[in-house]
Amino acid sequence: MTKQAIRIGIIGYGNLGRGVEAAIQRQADMELVAIFSRRGTQGVTPLDKAVKVEHVDDILNYQDRIDVMLLCGGSATDLPEQTPLYTKHFNTIDSFDNHSQIPHHFDTVDEVAQTSGKISIISVGWDPGLFSLNRVLAEAILPQGETYTFWGKGLSQGHSDAIRRIEGVRNGVQYTIPSEDAISQVRQGEQPDLSTSDKHTRECYVVLEEGADAAEIEQTIKRMPAYFSDYDTQVHFIDEETLIRDHSAMPHGGMVIRSGQTGADNPQVYEFNLTLGSNPEFTASVLVAYARAAYRLNQSGQKGARTVFDITLTDLATQSPEELRRRFL
Amino acid sequence: MTKQAIRIGIIGYGNLGRGVEAAIQRQADMELVAIFSRRGTQGVTPLDKAVKVEHVDDILNYQDRIDVMLLCGGSATDLPEQTPLYTKHFNTIDSFDNHSQIPHHFDTVDEVAQTSGKISIISVGWDPGLFSLNRVLAEAILPQGETYTFWGKGLSQGHSDAIRRIEGVRNGVQYTIPSEDAISQVRQGEQPDLSTSDKHTRECYVVLEEGADAAEIEQTIKRMPAYFSDYDTQVHFIDEETLIRDHSAMPHGGMVIRSGQTGADNPQVYEFNLTLGSNPEFTASVLVAYARAAYRLNQSGQKGARTVFDITLTDLATQSPEELRRRFL
Repeated sequence: MTKQAIRIGIIGYGNLGRGVEAAIQRQADMELVAIFSRRGTQGVTPLDKAVKVEHVDDILNYQDRIDVMLLCGGSATDLPEQTPLYTKHFNTIDSFDNHSQIPHHFDTVDEVAQTSGKISIISVGWDPGLFSLNRVLAEAILPQGETYTFWGKGLSQGHSDAIRRIEGVRNGVQYTIPSEDAISQVRQGEQPDLSTSDKHTRECYVVLEEGADAAEIEQTIKRMPAYFSDYDTQVHFIDEETLIRDHSAMPHGGMVIRSGQTGADNPQVYEFNLTLGSNPEFTASVLVAYARAAYRLNQSGQKGARTVFDITLTDLATQSPEELRRRFL
Repeated sequence: MTKQAIRIGIIGYGNLGRGVEAAIQRQADMELVAIFSRRGTQGVTPLDKAVKVEHVDDILNYQDRIDVMLLCGGSATDLPEQTPLYTKHFNTIDSFDNHSQIPHHFDTVDEVAQTSGKISIISVGWDPGLFSLNRVLAEAILPQGETYTFWGKGLSQGHSDAIRRIEGVRNGVQYTIPSEDAISQVRQGEQPDLSTSDKHTRECYVVLEEGADAAEIEQTIKRMPAYFSDYDTQVHFIDEETLIRDHSAMPHGGMVIRSGQTGADNPQVYEFNLTLGSNPEFTASVLVAYARAAYRLNQSGQKGARTVFDITLTDLATQSPEELRRRFL
């Protein structure tokens, strides 16, 4: 590296934080300075043993040593508090995904960032994030039409938790599966009216406690309101060993499709599609790319909250504008 | 409309110019002021008879009446001359797609725009354009991996022309068809080494002159260097009536797929896919969306040449930043 690397810090070290550490290893222009955790220095084992782990209380010692802080906590309670707090001292990136609270979160973070002179890019990832980008771009180009989002095939944490709370269930996972029929209708340029349950089915893999009644548990799952009752749901019973062997990965993905028309109603179908071997590692890779943009914007004197809608590809890419034009246009 | 509409002019009225006229009709915040043609006022029949047609020599009369000029000429000879020429007086958008000349074209247009105080966004469309965006975004997120572009199914103008130049051929069209096998390999996360001819086959529909030798013409097509000899090529002979009935549309499309890996080599597949009922109408719709960005950038005091890499979604979308965050994140 000829230039100085962009110096990154991670706050929070669950699946997403680990994904960020792995993603930084694959970026030639970045270095991980430290991981900060509420568990303190002993509570975290980084992928790379050489990486420094600090208690989050010591974070201000790093004000001059970290360019961008990647916040890897949850949207329910961590990020609403942490993003405003740390944006007082650092450029920040978060993956805040509590949809209805995004406008409020943006305003709160923006106020802090305007005062501290930092950049914070919020709600980064693939949904919200790349999917949001594609919804906006597709509608800007094709103002008449319908946009559809399909999720999966993917492991849903919330639905898996709901299964595991049922008495008699020892363990279980749930996959959200997009309906092939619905996808194929939309891809053909039709614009059907589809509810979320029309677009998806649910597949559950369940390990029973000894003596539990499989038929009864299957009915309990299928009748669970909000989670399963509106969906075509399949329940498979497997043993713990099979669950660990075949269902420990965290695949996910999905697609945004806009079916629009131009001229004398010529159909135009725009599709963005992700098939992810690891959901947290991909989300982390998106966060890390946007850290580059946050760093550059702040270096150029900008401040305030941003979303993916405000960032150019020139700010995101490692290549110079000249190289982008030569190699990618 | 409460705000004043963005006032658009069109230079050149072939398939792309007609597509731009149609696309403006579908944008609530734009109005078409005039079409300019070298053929003069009598040589052009707009879709909407009420639209004014002017000889291109009278274009300077419109300096205060048009916000953005959309250049709809060809990349071979029109745009290298027209984009610098009209950027002296107008914000401009072009679809310059002569790949090796893009860096030079950018520099030439930038010099003019810096002096005239205008914005010019060059090489807009879907490839170059949206495909370029996706190549850069995918590589920024997944620095390790391979990016693949497939084109089609689509009508190729250059290959259709090559067929029509053969003696004994009265008329003909050629479709570029992406190889399903190659696509499926890449979608599964493999990173095969694929040449353009590995990724595509070619399908020709040919109308013969009376007395022409079909077998000989089929061989002439299949052996034509650069165009067909490296490809798996199919030739179908049909009559003129069938050609006009079944092969007058201009479908196209294609996909950009990046197959990358994160962490301990988890596969991550990123795909952008277009299925276009009308290639010129979709390309025109992209140009028109970027006209909005050109207008806004110039209104905010910016000048110079830009590409799709330099434009944010906030600049492209009709919605306010607040509405984008509320509805699309």
